Amino acid sequence: MKLNEWLNNEIPNISKSLESINHSHFFIDKTIGFAGKEKIYKILHQFRSSLFPGVYEKYPIDETKVNIIIGNNLRTAALELRDLIKKALVNNTDIQDKSQDECEECKIKATDIVIKLINKFPEIRQNLQTDIEAAYNGDPAAVTTEEILLSYPSIEAITIHRIAHELYEMHVPIIPRIMSEYSHQRTGIDIHPGAEIGHHFFIDHGTGVVIGETCTIGNHVKIYQGVTLGAKSFSLDEEGKPIKGLKRHPNIGDNVVIYAGATILGGDTTIGHDSVIGGNIWLTESVPPFSKVYNIQPSPTIKNGN
Amino acid sequence: MKLNEWLNNEIPNISKSLESINHSHFFIDKTIGFAGKEKIYKILHQFRSSLFPGVYEKYPIDETKVNIIIGNNLRTAALELRDLIKKALVNNTDIQDKSQDECEECKIKATDIVIKLINKFPEIRQNLQTDIEAAYNGDPAAVTTEEILLSYPSIEAITIHRIAHELYEMHVPIIPRIMSEYSHQRTGIDIHPGAEIGHHFFIDHGTGVVIGETCTIGNHVKIYQGVTLGAKSFSLDEEGKPIKGLKRHPNIGDNVVIYAGATILGGDTTIGHDSVIGGNIWLTESVPPFSKVYNIQPSPTIKNGN
Amino acid sequence: MKLNEWLNNEIPNISKSLESINHSHFFIDKTIGFAGKEKIYKILHQFRSSLFPGVYEKYPIDETKVNIIIGNNLRTAALELRDLIKKALVNNTDIQDKSQDECEECKIKATDIVIKLINKFPEIRQNLQTDIEAAYNGDPAAVTTEEILLSYPSIEAITIHRIAHELYEMHVPIIPRIMSEYSHQRTGIDIHPGAEIGHHFFIDHGTGVVIGETCTIGNHVKIYQGVTLGAKSFSLDEEGKPIKGLKRHPNIGDNVVIYAGATILGGDTTIGHDSVIGGNIWLTESVPPFSKVYNIQPSPTIKNGN
Amino acid sequence: MKLNEWLNNEIPNISKSLESINHSHFFIDKTIGFAGKEKIYKILHQFRSSLFPGVYEKYPIDETKVNIIIGNNLRTAALELRDLIKKALVNNTDIQDKSQDECEECKIKATDIVIKLINKFPEIRQNLQTDIEAAYNGDPAAVTTEEILLSYPSIEAITIHRIAHELYEMHVPIIPRIMSEYSHQRTGIDIHPGAEIGHHFFIDHGTGVVIGETCTIGNHVKIYQGVTLGAKSFSLDEEGKPIKGLKRHPNIGDNVVIYAGATILGGDTTIGHDSVIGGNIWLTESVPPFSKVYNIQPSPTIKNGN
Amino acid sequence: MKLNEWLNNEIPNISKSLESINHSHFFIDKTIGFAGKEKIYKILHQFRSSLFPGVYEKYPIDETKVNIIIGNNLRTAALELRDLIKKALVNNTDIQDKSQDECEECKIKATDIVIKLINKFPEIRQNLQTDIEAAYNGDPAAVTTEEILLSYPSIEAITIHRIAHELYEMHVPIIPRIMSEYSHQRTGIDIHPGAEIGHHFFIDHGTGVVIGETCTIGNHVKIYQGVTLGAKSFSLDEEGKPIKGLKRHPNIGDNVVIYAGATILGGDTTIGHDSVIGGNIWLTESVPPFSKVYNIQPSPTIKNGN
Amino acid sequence: MKLNEWLNNEIPNISKSLESINHSHFFIDKTIGFAGKEKIYKILHQFRSSLFPGVYEKYPIDETKVNIIIGNNLRTAALELRDLIKKALVNNTDIQDKSQDECEECKIKATDIVIKLINKFPEIRQNLQTDIEAAYNGDPAAVTTEEILLSYPSIEAITIHRIAHELYEMHVPIIPRIMSEYSHQRTGIDIHPGAEIGHHFFIDHGTGVVIGETCTIGNHVKIYQGVTLGAKSFSLDEEGKPIKGLKRHPNIGDNVVIYAGATILGGDTTIGHDSVIGGNIWLTESVPPFSKVYNIQPSPTIKNGN
Repeated sequence: MKLNEWLNNEIPNISKSLESINHSHFFIDKTIGFAGKEKIYKILHQFRSSLFPGVYEKYPIDETKVNIIIGNNLRTAALELRDLIKKALVNNTDIQDKSQDECEECKIKATDIVIKLINKFPEIRQNLQTDIEAAYNGDPAAVTTEEILLSYPSIEAITIHRIAHELYEMHVPIIPRIMSEYSHQRTGIDIHPGAEIGHHFFIDHGTGVVIGETCTIGNHVKIYQGVTLGAKSFSLDEEGKPIKGLKRHPNIGDNVVIYAGATILGGDTTIGHDSVIGGNIWLTESVPPFSKVYNIQPSPTIKNGN
Repeated sequence: MKLNEWLNNEIPNISKSLESINHSHFFIDKTIGFAGKEKIYKILHQFRSSLFPGVYEKYPIDETKVNIIIGNNLRTAALELRDLIKKALVNNTDIQDKSQDECEECKIKATDIVIKLINKFPEIRQNLQTDIEAAYNGDPAAVTTEEILLSYPSIEAITIHRIAHELYEMHVPIIPRIMSEYSHQRTGIDIHPGAEIGHHFFIDHGTGVVIGETCTIGNHVKIYQGVTLGAKSFSLDEEGKPIKGLKRHPNIGDNVVIYAGATILGGDTTIGHDSVIGGNIWLTESVPPFSKVYNIQPSPTIKNGN
Repeated sequence: MKLNEWLNNEIPNISKSLESINHSHFFIDKTIGFAGKEKIYKILHQFRSSLFPGVYEKYPIDETKVNIIIGNNLRTAALELRDLIKKALVNNTDIQDKSQDECEECKIKATDIVIKLINKFPEIRQNLQTDIEAAYNGDPAAVTTEEILLSYPSIEAITIHRIAHELYEMHVPIIPRIMSEYSHQRTGIDIHPGAEIGHHFFIDHGTGVVIGETCTIGNHVKIYQGVTLGAKSFSLDEEGKPIKGLKRHPNIGDNVVIYAGATILGGDTTIGHDSVIGGNIWLTESVPPFSKVYNIQPSPTIKNGN
Repeated sequence: MKLNEWLNNEIPNISKSLESINHSHFFIDKTIGFAGKEKIYKILHQFRSSLFPGVYEKYPIDETKVNIIIGNNLRTAALELRDLIKKALVNNTDIQDKSQDECEECKIKATDIVIKLINKFPEIRQNLQTDIEAAYNGDPAAVTTEEILLSYPSIEAITIHRIAHELYEMHVPIIPRIMSEYSHQRTGIDIHPGAEIGHHFFIDHGTGVVIGETCTIGNHVKIYQGVTLGAKSFSLDEEGKPIKGLKRHPNIGDNVVIYAGATILGGDTTIGHDSVIGGNIWLTESVPPFSKVYNIQPSPTIKNGN
Repeated sequence: MKLNEWLNNEIPNISKSLESINHSHFFIDKTIGFAGKEKIYKILHQFRSSLFPGVYEKYPIDETKVNIIIGNNLRTAALELRDLIKKALVNNTDIQDKSQDECEECKIKATDIVIKLINKFPEIRQNLQTDIEAAYNGDPAAVTTEEILLSYPSIEAITIHRIAHELYEMHVPIIPRIMSEYSHQRTGIDIHPGAEIGHHFFIDHGTGVVIGETCTIGNHVKIYQGVTLGAKSFSLDEEGKPIKGLKRHPNIGDNVVIYAGATILGGDTTIGHDSVIGGNIWLTESVPPFSKVYNIQPSPTIKNGN
Repeated sequence: MKLNEWLNNEIPNISKSLESINHSHFFIDKTIGFAGKEKIYKILHQFRSSLFPGVYEKYPIDETKVNIIIGNNLRTAALELRDLIKKALVNNTDIQDKSQDECEECKIKATDIVIKLINKFPEIRQNLQTDIEAAYNGDPAAVTTEEILLSYPSIEAITIHRIAHELYEMHVPIIPRIMSEYSHQRTGIDIHPGAEIGHHFFIDHGTGVVIGETCTIGNHVKIYQGVTLGAKSFSLDEEGKPIKGLKRHPNIGDNVVIYAGATILGGDTTIGHDSVIGGNIWLTESVPPFSKVYNIQPSPTIKNGN
């Protein structure tokens, strides 16, 4: 068999080549994420099951079990997350020369972070309740809150964001980004875990929404599909590399509505509260409260075919 | 172990807190959807296997088995769907005080709906054949109809829509929306199950397309990515809540083409047949048949770098 | 049981009807894709595991196993892919009257293609390394290259594209399109396998990006979400069917940046190197090198609410 | 890595060696059973689900679904079993030079066998009901028939035997033996599919029971663990090979009880009806009806320790 | 297709026939066990994971997680077991006319049983430790206690027995028998959950061991493969049905050894403490303490072949 | 909820209790076997797939893939087995104070063992071919060698034994025993990995067979169900613990047949070549070659019922 022979003879060389490329660019077995990515997805699943018991369980559960099932999910997820955060911290700190097992400090910090996160869960859940209400009041097509919980991508995205954001705030490396990208993949909504988002938040339809790392968003904000809250440009350092960590994305006030396809850019761009930003608007400057921003649509040329 | 102790001591309190938040806002074990969501996905899978035998089976099937496999899929799905529809009806009707098991009327109605749905399958399949043809004729990149069936999100979206729409028409609560959101998640195409869509329908690329609940779309319509067929605004009732159920989305005539990124809004906006709507057009008013609607593009400023 | 009886009595007829519709339109068991789709996904998984060992393995792997695991993945995938390509070739060639088992020529050609593809893997991996670098330098939010590899849809999309494109170049039917649609579904980025893309390629956020079949893209190109590199229109033959295979999509020079929502159309549209295309630009004509193309934004009307 | 290198260099040789040993002794891809074994297990599962609806389903089923679920199980299993029987027949007949696809005669015969088997199912189910009764009346530890159905290996063994025996009677090669060994593995009861067994059959505990190919067993027979109904010796042909197909195992009359560890050997050994065979009896000759066969136990020496 | 047609036409009749046989003999959806069997296996798995943390987990666990993992397993299993016991009680009591949901008394009793069972777990675990020691001291082939825990069927059988026996003692219907049969299937050791077994219990090899419902077994007892502790015969009532619940099986004193294949029968047969019962012994009468019971082996005839 | 409260309040205490019992008796996370048991099962699966390609694959494989699939299975299994052996060696050696990662010597030894084992595979496969032949010639019920391979427990048991025995010979701790118990569970045949077994070996039916650690068995030996090759008794050391490692089990010469239920005991018991040992024989002394050993069966009392 020609293919068999080639596979036996040549694959070892190609494997060696691929192996060496990988080794020269990063260390294969020193990162959290490689095998940990699926663990993070599972933790998210358990956290969401705790927040909305019944929604993510494989089997119907009855009322008498809710308390125990929440507890089990939280406990299991907590143990796993502690390990992953510890690993991420070890990789990321100056103490890289210390071996994983010895970084007692990382373990303590990781434990601390997990406890703080879970202590926030009742508050997160309260906020999510306001998000459900916002969806109900913001979409005439929504008939019941049950429908929202079961079929609105907005709820999935904001649930994951509110968890990821807490970890981002406590300077957990990489894990929050893996969480937000998981949400992005499933909903088409890309919220960087750094973004600060108030209560009663709702994104209708959602596909194509991008919300940047240094955004702040007030309460009662409603956003439609295809909206970008992005950076105007970014500064390079002397070597031409981007300077990380600067404020680059806009601030959105309370009670703002942003219609589909609008683009708002820049770290010093502030949308005043109670404003409405029309569809397809391109905005790189601040507007005061109570503004209504619409394009004077260039009247489209309409050619009658007859 | 500090974490262990905290988990043992504090998790019961946090669980209790989360439990009570959930109880005060909706009933954990009274809805269809919670554990039923995966069942609906499975039913969709079985329905699609019936419509396109072989495509969604895990193993290759040969011709002699097609008839039996279609039948088995339909039968299995029918039993499950009947139960789910019954449950959804019980939750949704005035007769909420009656227990699940007693609502004989709901069961009869659910049976009726399932039978009507499956009786429509040959017609649905015929329509899907026209959608495949529309894709072939509408995309020069399509080499074979096989390719379309296997790799075009449009076919997935319109298949699920044509099923969900039938259920919507028969006033089945929540289930059609779970179906359409499943499709949205996988294709980036968000078609509300209420939309009425003619034959020979094709969406190219698809990501970001939004088609609202009260849209009507004629035959031979072609839509590109990022198109919104949405509402202009919506009316609030006296309490400031949106009034549900009004006509809010546009009507698209036969043989209309809508290019990428176009936005057409409003329940009294009608695109006359045989019209072409250009890319990025923002349209909130009706246009007559045979119209060609293009922006006079504001000529972009082109600065030569040298 | 009324439903039971109906299912027993009527389903055979509906099955027969669905079966006959399927038979009259295409042959159920003559195509690669039906049951082969999941195999292609698995092959992609194995190829990506070979290119980035550790990332897609279910369990953490240590350094001493990398070489063997790469080799095993390549070997297993190679055998499967050879069979699938052979099947696709048999279905697609003039020699359709020959049975699958006899088309020795198809088998030889398939073997040849698989060997050529895998021989390209070190080069593909080198190019992907430049894509990772491009992401790091192109996004201030990226803190480590590890983060990019684990959470950037751009890397997933371009990895799959670079594999699918090789198969497209060797005229493998249908399989490359199934690969690219798999990527589209997961990332929202729709790159036709025909597109030619240089090194150091980066797509930020990505949702809604469409890159057409006959695009050529230079090195160091950066694209944001919602960008379309599409066709202006396409020619029909005498029967009104689209003429397949013509050059329809633009050429993008080296070092070009294209901001979110821009649309560049047409096979003779060329963006000169080192150009910047602004957000939401609609461009159907060529621009010279070093151009900066911005809309003079129609100043939006800002109505103060007070 | 020393191991890596050895694996790359030497495994191809060892593979080649193992491959050639396998090729010289039997044909790798010409048999039913290799990949078909799991299919047979699945068919057994579906058949048993049809006979005792609810017992082997993963989810609880309610009464209204029973009929359809039985039907679906039978239909799915029938299609698979037809293919497997056809394959077994092709391998086993003189027409081995004909290719699988052409052996129309085998296909017709296989279809015929499947139909005959399933037509027997109501009768098989009736017999199994008598087996359940026999267990209830034969074991004081059995409290309910439900308990018997759920926790007695006898029922599992005799269910599978009654199916396998029908196939054996219709001269289906190999498949009945795979079925009986599946049962043997799970219950420790080894009944050759050739054995003829009457109604009201019960094996208590069961482990170690062996019932040979040419046994006949009457009605209302009860057997305990460790009983062998075997061959005395077997005849060799001129080449010293065993002569296959001769009557080698005993006949057990109606209403016979055989206690634990008894051994009854020989094709012309007949246990007359209404006999009782004591524990550990070694019997190679016939006994008349109504016999009670006990060892005069050699009184064991009992040494008092004191 | 002949088979297709037959399946469509005749299967409904055969289904109906099978359905009616099932309905006339027991109620399809009124029992615990049907769909509950797998739940019981899962509960056993969780209980065994709690007793020997790490042994039955899919992934290696480290010391810091042991406490939480034990707790989670116990909690999850407790909830499930409570439901199953409740269901079994409802089916089994006089109050059968009350619906499942109303039998508050059953629920209270089930809760009580679960709590009592789990409270016994530390004691059960202590006893199992003595069983491990007994294996180590009773088998020269055992090199480490780890080896015993990982590869001795005796440990599996006695672990499950000690759990099942507690439920039997609290008069839980059917569930203990499903547990013991699960163990029987996996180990070949058939211990009825009614048997009372002391500490330091060891069964070597185990296949074919049968221990009856009303056995009592002292401490430090060792048993080899193929041993039966059974009933001599059993009494029938006036209708010829076995009288259930009588003492039928022997009593084994402390420090007794019973060698392979021995059979000890009868409810009034007592083996005095510190006795040794030889291989293949058939014993239906009591022996005093410190007895050594051996067959005077009938010297086998040895015919020299030459 | 009473149960909920109890679970929250009391489970932590019970967990703590169970945890401490486990900690005082052995170290939870220091052993190979806990999570490794399933890995060993998988390795066995891969080894058996290499020896009999096609039999244990989930999908049918064709001839052209055999070589590569064997190689992949061997390579994957080799890597895993090396790790497990290393771990077992670390736990078992004097160098227990060295950490896992540092025991370079253990790693070298483990690599060496794996290479030696796999180098033996062609020889093992040759021996297994003789075992298949022995089954064919030893059982008149065997119609084809294919049937033997697919449905005879003897082949499963001897395949696993021949692998486990090689590891035992190289002093690998615990892993061989886990392998042999896996085989015991599935076949009812309990062969200690220490036993030395010649070629052309066949066990008919098999359930209940026990073959002790220090047995030697010649070529062309045939054994029936329920045969024990065991120890007479074993010596205790001064503390009353069994002395491990002594010769305790019999030697069986070439061409010996041992019928069902026979028991042969003792380390200095030798069955001379070409002997036949009758059913239920109890033998604790040697017999010369060509012996035929039968019980003069105590003629059973046969009471005619009439």
